[in-house]
Amino acid sequence: MKPYGSLFEGFTTEEIQEVIESSQATTRELPKGATLFSPGEKPESFYILLSGSVEVMRVDSEGRRRILSVFSEKGSLFAEVYAFLKKQSYDYLCITREPSSFLQFPTTFYFEETEDPLRTRLLLNMMKILAHKAFYLSQKSMILATASLRGRIARYLLSLTSDDVCTLPLNRNDLADYLGVSRPALSRELMSMQEEGLFCVQGRKVTRMDRKAMESIG
Amino acid sequence: MKPYGSLFEGFTTEEIQEVIESSQATTRELPKGATLFSPGEKPESFYILLSGSVEVMRVDSEGRRRILSVFSEKGSLFAEVYAFLKKQSYDYLCITREPSSFLQFPTTFYFEETEDPLRTRLLLNMMKILAHKAFYLSQKSMILATASLRGRIARYLLSLTSDDVCTLPLNRNDLADYLGVSRPALSRELMSMQEEGLFCVQGRKVTRMDRKAMESIG
Repeated sequence: MKPYGSLFEGFTTEEIQEVIESSQATTRELPKGATLFSPGEKPESFYILLSGSVEVMRVDSEGRRRILSVFSEKGSLFAEVYAFLKKQSYDYLCITREPSSFLQFPTTFYFEETEDPLRTRLLLNMMKILAHKAFYLSQKSMILATASLRGRIARYLLSLTSDDVCTLPLNRNDLADYLGVSRPALSRELMSMQEEGLFCVQGRKVTRMDRKAMESIG
Repeated sequence: MKPYGSLFEGFTTEEIQEVIESSQATTRELPKGATLFSPGEKPESFYILLSGSVEVMRVDSEGRRRILSVFSEKGSLFAEVYAFLKKQSYDYLCITREPSSFLQFPTTFYFEETEDPLRTRLLLNMMKILAHKAFYLSQKSMILATASLRGRIARYLLSLTSDDVCTLPLNRNDLADYLGVSRPALSRELMSMQEEGLFCVQGRKVTRMDRKAMESIG
């Protein structure tokens, strides 16, 4: 991942500089535990993570936090969606998990009338990012729509390949998170599905998937 | 919804005509039960629904169909994501539910180098559509990540309002579909949650929500 991420894919260093200047983006540094935005605040910026990491969470009326996503990869684009929703305020809290730095763009950036060809290329990159996000989330929704953990695992594995072997792109913690379950529950279910002969799993390697049997899991 | 939908929001009839001509979009009419695209086919077009309706589904190795989405609103944009994914072929089957007509755009449309200001405005509209889709799907994933039907209902209702009353935007069938359960199961659970005093529901009207109790449902 390049330092400015997929938003600037295909841009030269000079072109990136030009866009940053013309869009009035600024660099921001925050210590660990600082708030980048919070519920009730008006969405006026979107961000590219330059270093560190942040988490986005929902806080309920009793103060309990439910993490929605963590961004730790340099160049990650986030908070880019709210500007389009005409929402008066954020629903989420975003805080730094460690000292972090950001490139902060004003959201007006999207809507300025301009015929700058650099801007057009940037919009196209933004569209690609949004399209990938929509695809990822639509796959995820389809998998999560299954109520049973066993069904979620089966659908997830089937979605990864049309073959009977595959390599898991996520480690166990991230997979548990993705499937909306605890890590011990995930390990137990993987073990029991394996004992029933639905597949073999060693580390991230899955082999001998019985697709037919897995497709019939509700 | 205008006949060409949100992709052409803010465009005059003449501007729409100009874009359709320059992008070499064509109009297509299909009878009921016809295939618009199917798994294995290369994604080369995206569509705007002009009349009728289509359903997009996944077909497993035993021929069972699982419906992913139905488009029936005039102006709906669909199959717009695959072009960005560099996927060799569709994973889904799309068929007409009744006689239908479409505006079919070549996906090359996205990637042509052009400084046409109309094109830039169109890309911006496309981004808005993708951003809304990503937001909708991210809300849905968060709700579906709850394993119990009760938890899904609670999170869904909490997501609709920060108040203790609201109006459901979906009818019972669509709500059952959204929550990934059967309609009878949904009705039973709504009834039993009501009996326990979590809320009152009459048709689409929900009142007296006990947010605290609902937030504590796992």
